[in-house]
Amino acid sequence: MFSHFSNKQILDANFGIEREGLRVTSNGQLSLAPHPEVFGDKKENPYITTDFSESQLELVTPVFHTTNDAIDFLDSLYNIAALELENEFIWPQSMPSVTPEEQDIPIATFSKQGKDESYRAYLEQKYGGKKQLISGIHINFSLGDKLIQTLYSKTNKQQSLKDFKQELYLKMTRNYLRHHWLLVYFLGATNTIHKTYEQQCVETLQEISEETYSNGKATSYRNSICGYQNKEFLTLDYSSIDQYVKSVTSYIGKGVIEDIRELYSQIRLKSKGIYSAENLVENGIEYLEIRTIDINPFIKSGLSVEDMNFIHLFLLYCLEKEETLYDNWQIESESNSKKVAIEGQNLQLELLKDGSPISLQNWGMEILHDLIEMNQQYGLPFYHLLKEKKEVITNYQKTYSYRLSELCKEKGYVKAHLELAEQHRKDAFSERFKLKPYTDMELSTQILLKESIKRGISFNILDRSDNFIELIKGTNIQFIKQATKTSKDQYVSVLIMENKSVTKHILKRNDIIVPEGEEFFDIDSAKESLGNWIGVPLVIKPKSTNFGLGISIFPNGAHEEDLIKALKIAFREDSTILIEPFIKGKEYRFMVIGDETVAVLHRVPANVTGDGISTIQQLIGKKNVDPLRGKGYKTPLEKIEIDENMKLFLQQEDFTIDTVLPEGKLQYLRENSNISTGGDSIDVTDQVPEIFKQIAVESSQAVGAKICGVDMMIEDLEDECSPYAIIELNFNPAIHIHSYPYIGKERNIAYSILKLLDFE
Amino acid sequence: MFSHFSNKQILDANFGIEREGLRVTSNGQLSLAPHPEVFGDKKENPYITTDFSESQLELVTPVFHTTNDAIDFLDSLYNIAALELENEFIWPQSMPSVTPEEQDIPIATFSKQGKDESYRAYLEQKYGGKKQLISGIHINFSLGDKLIQTLYSKTNKQQSLKDFKQELYLKMTRNYLRHHWLLVYFLGATNTIHKTYEQQCVETLQEISEETYSNGKATSYRNSICGYQNKEFLTLDYSSIDQYVKSVTSYIGKGVIEDIRELYSQIRLKSKGIYSAENLVENGIEYLEIRTIDINPFIKSGLSVEDMNFIHLFLLYCLEKEETLYDNWQIESESNSKKVAIEGQNLQLELLKDGSPISLQNWGMEILHDLIEMNQQYGLPFYHLLKEKKEVITNYQKTYSYRLSELCKEKGYVKAHLELAEQHRKDAFSERFKLKPYTDMELSTQILLKESIKRGISFNILDRSDNFIELIKGTNIQFIKQATKTSKDQYVSVLIMENKSVTKHILKRNDIIVPEGEEFFDIDSAKESLGNWIGVPLVIKPKSTNFGLGISIFPNGAHEEDLIKALKIAFREDSTILIEPFIKGKEYRFMVIGDETVAVLHRVPANVTGDGISTIQQLIGKKNVDPLRGKGYKTPLEKIEIDENMKLFLQQEDFTIDTVLPEGKLQYLRENSNISTGGDSIDVTDQVPEIFKQIAVESSQAVGAKICGVDMMIEDLEDECSPYAIIELNFNPAIHIHSYPYIGKERNIAYSILKLLDFE
Repeated sequence: MFSHFSNKQILDANFGIEREGLRVTSNGQLSLAPHPEVFGDKKENPYITTDFSESQLELVTPVFHTTNDAIDFLDSLYNIAALELENEFIWPQSMPSVTPEEQDIPIATFSKQGKDESYRAYLEQKYGGKKQLISGIHINFSLGDKLIQTLYSKTNKQQSLKDFKQELYLKMTRNYLRHHWLLVYFLGATNTIHKTYEQQCVETLQEISEETYSNGKATSYRNSICGYQNKEFLTLDYSSIDQYVKSVTSYIGKGVIEDIRELYSQIRLKSKGIYSAENLVENGIEYLEIRTIDINPFIKSGLSVEDMNFIHLFLLYCLEKEETLYDNWQIESESNSKKVAIEGQNLQLELLKDGSPISLQNWGMEILHDLIEMNQQYGLPFYHLLKEKKEVITNYQKTYSYRLSELCKEKGYVKAHLELAEQHRKDAFSERFKLKPYTDMELSTQILLKESIKRGISFNILDRSDNFIELIKGTNIQFIKQATKTSKDQYVSVLIMENKSVTKHILKRNDIIVPEGEEFFDIDSAKESLGNWIGVPLVIKPKSTNFGLGISIFPNGAHEEDLIKALKIAFREDSTILIEPFIKGKEYRFMVIGDETVAVLHRVPANVTGDGISTIQQLIGKKNVDPLRGKGYKTPLEKIEIDENMKLFLQQEDFTIDTVLPEGKLQYLRENSNISTGGDSIDVTDQVPEIFKQIAVESSQAVGAKICGVDMMIEDLEDECSPYAIIELNFNPAIHIHSYPYIGKERNIAYSILKLLDFE
Repeated sequence: MFSHFSNKQILDANFGIEREGLRVTSNGQLSLAPHPEVFGDKKENPYITTDFSESQLELVTPVFHTTNDAIDFLDSLYNIAALELENEFIWPQSMPSVTPEEQDIPIATFSKQGKDESYRAYLEQKYGGKKQLISGIHINFSLGDKLIQTLYSKTNKQQSLKDFKQELYLKMTRNYLRHHWLLVYFLGATNTIHKTYEQQCVETLQEISEETYSNGKATSYRNSICGYQNKEFLTLDYSSIDQYVKSVTSYIGKGVIEDIRELYSQIRLKSKGIYSAENLVENGIEYLEIRTIDINPFIKSGLSVEDMNFIHLFLLYCLEKEETLYDNWQIESESNSKKVAIEGQNLQLELLKDGSPISLQNWGMEILHDLIEMNQQYGLPFYHLLKEKKEVITNYQKTYSYRLSELCKEKGYVKAHLELAEQHRKDAFSERFKLKPYTDMELSTQILLKESIKRGISFNILDRSDNFIELIKGTNIQFIKQATKTSKDQYVSVLIMENKSVTKHILKRNDIIVPEGEEFFDIDSAKESLGNWIGVPLVIKPKSTNFGLGISIFPNGAHEEDLIKALKIAFREDSTILIEPFIKGKEYRFMVIGDETVAVLHRVPANVTGDGISTIQQLIGKKNVDPLRGKGYKTPLEKIEIDENMKLFLQQEDFTIDTVLPEGKLQYLRENSNISTGGDSIDVTDQVPEIFKQIAVESSQAVGAKICGVDMMIEDLEDECSPYAIIELNFNPAIHIHSYPYIGKERNIAYSILKLLDFE
């Protein structure tokens, strides 16, 4: 089917994931607290919402073109949601935690009461609230448009592209149903149940450890009769979309189900727009919703990228695999699936294949061999993945279900799951500053996107390498570049800030103190005027530039020849340079957003503090372990690198990197305080006297800026009458340094930006 | 006094100029039309206003630090004012043109009636309206602060800096009065009077040609009894500022004059703030107002930079020159001045110097020798200027007054002056696109400044090399860079326009047609996709960049290897490149300001049209004569340069630059239509169907831009249903190409920008 297709062509597909998860207390009780307010209106947040219960989080990814991106984003959603829960965890299994009595299970509430709540009440009535708490993973899958077109172009084109596409999806669906028992075996992860779960179910099982019930060989109670299923198995007509809808409608007519949404099949046929029978007939199948998958308790997001790839390959197999003629295939498939769910850890379990018995292991091995052959034939990259699955079909002790039951036996149901949840939360915290799969973008943009997603603001990446995004909520559409370049700043304000002499001129006029310096347009006139500056503490810098290039600082003054050198360096960067007096004190970065100083930061050079035992090199190693430190500006702080500069710097104090520092001794490792060379960021927002915050706001207002990084020298931060001077205004201030400082409170700058942009 | 001072230190000074000039009809009659509305409220326009009469323009420069800049700006003010007069001219002489009866002379009116009008009525009553029409040049002069400080630092500092400064100015004033007769001789240019002037005066003179009256040897009737002077000569006490004010006040007490403003001396002592006796006592002398100078009819602005330099040197001479003791110096000076005014063309005229007779020529020569010595001693750059003045003192026929009377003799009073005025107007027109002394700034900025000045909007140059200016009127303060970067555009709009793929995305979403192309991030994937593009008319371009760099156009498609070359070229400029279909038709630049397309331009490559006689090279030479064409982007169009590219281009048609083109044949000289390589700009604003102007506005609005250059391809400009596509949006569109096109109407884009900036 895919002969002569490139790898890229075959794997052209779209993936969206929905993952549910119960909020539980630190005792594993279902949380009775309302859905966190920060996530906004449940109906309007496209990423984080609820399903049946108020306590049942639902994480929804947009459509991605690779399995990797979809899983990454799901993982990020987990991080965002988990870190907003106070003293609560996301239950890491599909089957519920400790459940209250039916009547105490809180149904999700909506800002506009109506159909959403009444439909949930109907379901609770019919299926019971405890079953409704079961959480799963749904994968929305479609073939890429180009792949469908290429496949179509290889036919004789006697049918329309649309009809061709419908047939593809119907064949995939039929084959999926026939073979999905294998996914139940591989991905089943619900072979233990808490004793507070539905008694009908618990009664049939044994207590294998504290509060843990199981039959000891199940793989997925969620996919069994204990799971959330229709009252009876509904066979449907998968021969054409019209026939399919007809068969569904007949069940509705008979009152078996209320509408198509109540059809809990392993795979759903979906069209564009809302999920309704009419829509399906009119628009045809646009994608498939795979509903077989249990949450993997060992994986933070609930689904590993390897399993996601396996599902993808499995679906392509369903597309390619020739179907056998066997009338009773639906009943047989359903029976196989249920058997595997309840008894799948028995590899010799007898399944039926077109009426003939075959063991789970043999049939599974057959399918795996087909997949391995397919992988090889088309040069796909899943060899290792398939090898691992082969081991799992050979050894049931490698299934998630077996591993989970062993853990429950050891620790008890609640503790086993809570420990996993706690570990996932810890991992989420250590990744809190980034947003997968956008880790190639600037950290500031990732932080802003993360905050937007949390609050249900939709985003589009307009230009990934340019960090150009779009945020949308209701009628508010905002274009944003590099997190701080927005519609709120006037172009000319930015140009003013870019020009140091114009900035100074305007600040002075507004009675804000700036260093009183001189401006030169050529080196000769600068040299002529050097007389007044020899021996004076001063700074020589180019008029423009934002990266510290060409700036020389002489805190103790300098000789003429050094000044001339510095002039030359500055003139390399700009045709105008400034000589300014050096201002005593420390430099602080004031982050002004709108009319408020939202954070103040002090940066100090890379440093270590001795412990009386470790060498400087060892201390650096320890400090670098911090997950906030990385390489290449993808983390809020950079790892401290040992280089020649550092060695020279240490030499001045007769130290080497092998020197052992006495306990408590703070040792700086460089002259400069740049974060990029391993410097530390220290939040001092709460220590800075109000007056300086006000001066920062006034400076920003003087140039008409709405987002502005104000660099201020202050001689004594404790003293609100301390001398100060504004050194520079930055129109593109980094936000991550305030969001995740090395020391001090993390400031939610991204939220301030969102408020400025009228997302409230 | 200035020993060991550098040239720069000695010449450190401030200059401001006020120049009056009557508006006259093309018959030389005083205009009875009101002051042109475009100049706004007379009280609020700091540059162009009126003096006594509604028809008496007054041009006022800000303070400049060099004589050159002050004169340049005055000249620009002349251009701005003269070109706004319809069928009127600025009378080029201090003595009036054809004057109506006293009662018909229109006194200047003001928006708020009050003191201004009543004071004028009082003066008319007392001195007569005809005298009030006399127009002069006043120079406001002060020594540079640094110069004063340096001179002060050489004293023993027993008096305060302020007192020291007062003494400097009082000495200058006394010496000026003693020697200013020399300026009357050199700069006097009013030795002819029209027969309609005050009969008291005309009756004492002879008719030397048609309607021209003179005594044949005067230099300056304006400085004579025929000029505008107090009823009697008022001696004043110049020994100290207190004594000076006391002596003035005593005349006011006696009712001789109404207040200090009515004191018509040759030099006025001025303090900061309004001109009043109280202010003078309180704040001291801040500058001197030189009032001796007649308008030079031969110079457009009325004063040459050489004469301005002479006056500067003369004032420094007055500062340095030791004073002799002679009690009767004021009466003697006044008498000398009056004599020179009436009989100065007699070089043997007997003047009195400290009571002793001396001829005009001998004394003049004495002063000139002093000046030459001073020039040499301090290494000043005025040797040639002084040599010329020496010739004038040797030969009265070189005076402006003699030359003017000769011209009047030949052509009659009115014709002689009108011809000069017409020539000045022509010269003004050919310089209409530039604003001296800011010709080093971008043309667009000069044009915007010019329009601001015209309308009485004050300006500051914040950063000259950056073209960063500030415009102020009332409470409206606007910062502007490069004429089109303003407070009205959002920063993010600019960033959108800078990014071609984001721009296209947004335009498409707004149902605006853009070329449907592909985007590539590396050359390999671009190469892979080339298949669809081979032989297709297309454009390959980098995602960013505004200067046409890296763009390859294949209107007829190309082979793979050419496309790969073009890809490489594009990737040199950006890490993302676009391949787009080539759109048929011609490219037009739509200038959108606010919500309006204010101009549409078509650019064509450099070209000449044959005359059957001239070679291409000769035709280029003729075309390059146009004053709109210059070099280095200081003019609206560039001169066509003959280079290898052009020769190769001509070769394709078997032409060389020596080919003689048949009459009427239009021959293009290059492929590209850039104005920078000599292309022509053709205004088509009135030909473009409204629909395209609307599309341009919608494109601009889609990205939130307020000032936007929209580049649109249109297949057939005549057809409002023609296919089109938006090629690019430019956030920094040049305005000069629309303001001064090669063909078509000149569009006042600058005014549209001022309106956008709320200057109305």
